[in-house]
Amino acid sequence: MTVEAAEPARTRGPVRVVGAGLLGASIGLGLRLRGIDVLLDDASPGALALACDLGAGRRSDGTAPALVVVAAPPDVTAAVVAAELRAWPQAVVTDVASVKSGVLARLRDDGADLTRYVGGHPLAGRERSGAVAARGDLFAGRPWVLCSSGSSSALAVAAASALASDLGASAVAMDSVEHDWAVALVSHVPQLAATLVAARLRDATDSAVALAGQGLRDVTRIAASDPALWAQILAGNATPVAEVLRALRGDLDAVLAALDALAREDDGAGPAAGARGTLARAVADGNSGHARIPGKHGTPPTRYAAVTVVVPDAPGELARLLHDVGAAGVNLEDLHLEHSEGQPVALAEISVLPAAREPLSAALRELGWTVPA
Amino acid sequence: MTVEAAEPARTRGPVRVVGAGLLGASIGLGLRLRGIDVLLDDASPGALALACDLGAGRRSDGTAPALVVVAAPPDVTAAVVAAELRAWPQAVVTDVASVKSGVLARLRDDGADLTRYVGGHPLAGRERSGAVAARGDLFAGRPWVLCSSGSSSALAVAAASALASDLGASAVAMDSVEHDWAVALVSHVPQLAATLVAARLRDATDSAVALAGQGLRDVTRIAASDPALWAQILAGNATPVAEVLRALRGDLDAVLAALDALAREDDGAGPAAGARGTLARAVADGNSGHARIPGKHGTPPTRYAAVTVVVPDAPGELARLLHDVGAAGVNLEDLHLEHSEGQPVALAEISVLPAAREPLSAALRELGWTVPA
Repeated sequence: MTVEAAEPARTRGPVRVVGAGLLGASIGLGLRLRGIDVLLDDASPGALALACDLGAGRRSDGTAPALVVVAAPPDVTAAVVAAELRAWPQAVVTDVASVKSGVLARLRDDGADLTRYVGGHPLAGRERSGAVAARGDLFAGRPWVLCSSGSSSALAVAAASALASDLGASAVAMDSVEHDWAVALVSHVPQLAATLVAARLRDATDSAVALAGQGLRDVTRIAASDPALWAQILAGNATPVAEVLRALRGDLDAVLAALDALAREDDGAGPAAGARGTLARAVADGNSGHARIPGKHGTPPTRYAAVTVVVPDAPGELARLLHDVGAAGVNLEDLHLEHSEGQPVALAEISVLPAAREPLSAALRELGWTVPA
Repeated sequence: MTVEAAEPARTRGPVRVVGAGLLGASIGLGLRLRGIDVLLDDASPGALALACDLGAGRRSDGTAPALVVVAAPPDVTAAVVAAELRAWPQAVVTDVASVKSGVLARLRDDGADLTRYVGGHPLAGRERSGAVAARGDLFAGRPWVLCSSGSSSALAVAAASALASDLGASAVAMDSVEHDWAVALVSHVPQLAATLVAARLRDATDSAVALAGQGLRDVTRIAASDPALWAQILAGNATPVAEVLRALRGDLDAVLAALDALAREDDGAGPAAGARGTLARAVADGNSGHARIPGKHGTPPTRYAAVTVVVPDAPGELARLLHDVGAAGVNLEDLHLEHSEGQPVALAEISVLPAAREPLSAALRELGWTVPA
């Protein structure tokens, strides 16, 4: 189970973690599991005490750290990093803020020692926040972006990289400006799209929302995120997010113009020339973009084949199914459960490598499962 | 396993199914499983032959049907329904088009016998199309909206309702205009949002898309849908979709204005008064809308508690976990698997009733599972 324990820790302690929320406490827990001395600090005495109680580290006592990790809220990250660089002149300092070029610009304005600073962004998070939601393996298998300051020393880069790998993440070097555009595209604008679609449901009738299917659930899942945190993240990356969102609005306006022309056609105006083509092209462009998303484990997109099985909604039934899948020697690549209104069954869509599809379907039918053609 | 077999079929045959694509062939397969005589027809001889070969019914031979189901493409549905009403003066006619008021308006213009017509919309579909993707249980557990024509006879409504229930769906009566606004909100605009977000990825760098996480995957999953079909669906519901999309664009413009003000603030202009509040309110409105989506089985939204477990990515491991969950006597309400780049483990997030969270976590830890706090 503990894959990461196979290699000795590379991080040199003590590590000072400033900020005892979800990310800071998770870093503390993960490092403590590797036997590294963790010194915690937080502006809130209550948050600090809680994180210490949870085993994320011990209260900072003035011991000089080899590495400082700033896990403060995004809007104070730059100021805290600058203060830490001054307070610990021998330490490497990194942070975990989800937007990177603003932090770097402020440090540069501040005249901070940028040889000892490396920006960091672990792509991990949860819909919940605070140290109570922290987990030592929060970063396991996630990308952890490292942004050189432009003058970061090799030692500083190695220390930040060791931190990421000791926590089970994959370090990815990236320029801070490139990083911010990337997260605008793959995280911040998708968050806003989910938010804007979900917001439209506020005034919906009960019978309208009763028609919600898996598509709506998937599109809006991340709309449950924390407003205060997201206001800070979006504000910290305003220029890239605005540009991507403006491009999206351009596409949206073209779709809206086509729909308006079609609505006028319905009302008896002449044929809406080109409108259907505009809609089809928009959906096709979405197909092309969707195909860019890498598959599982960062490998190139793979077309998995799906085997759909009807599963009674009772304890143990899904386990029995997956036991049978395992017994057939097939590795499950992904699993999607679909529930719907009014029926005591669920549909399990099991993704497998294409070559495994037919043998698995046959094996499951043999065992009495309903596997629709 | 076969929940529906518990009750005798209510549908009176023969049933004539016009259109042998995914929906028509699935209806045929489902009715054949119930022992009902199915007469298939399709404008394409190849599609018809394939659906017959797959067991979805027999070739139409002029036998008069008791019920006609029109499962033709959306843009020809009204014309086909009108022709079927004329061809079979004793039959009830229903359809499965995903937009309803346009069909009804055209039938009314046509002077069709609306006492024998009931509009239908089963909320089922797949990312794949055609008879090869058809399944007899495609509609199991799904809502199936029935829209009276305003003069539909009780017999016609009963026949359409019997069809839905024989195929395992839940019949839901709804006015056709109300239906079209509802699907604009819960299906068509979410589809466009997923499409527009995915389209932005076309020009992304490989390193940007490599940062894609579960959030982006969820938001864009349905962006893989068929362009030609969706152009027809959207064109058929142009007015409601345009209105919902216009309201969404209004919210988007407010967010964009706030981001632009923050970008100017970054560039040295004065403080962007109110901009952070606008962003936080937008995300909070998304929270409220998201909370309207009903939970599993159409029950009111339930806050499930999540238990996260680290699962080695090997055959049988997930089955072993779910066996252990079942053995603990806990009913799994939902399951979400998270995979990420570079790690041979997955995180299984098991949703359970809140009261089951702690006992289950303890039981799984006892059995050696890693269950992060």
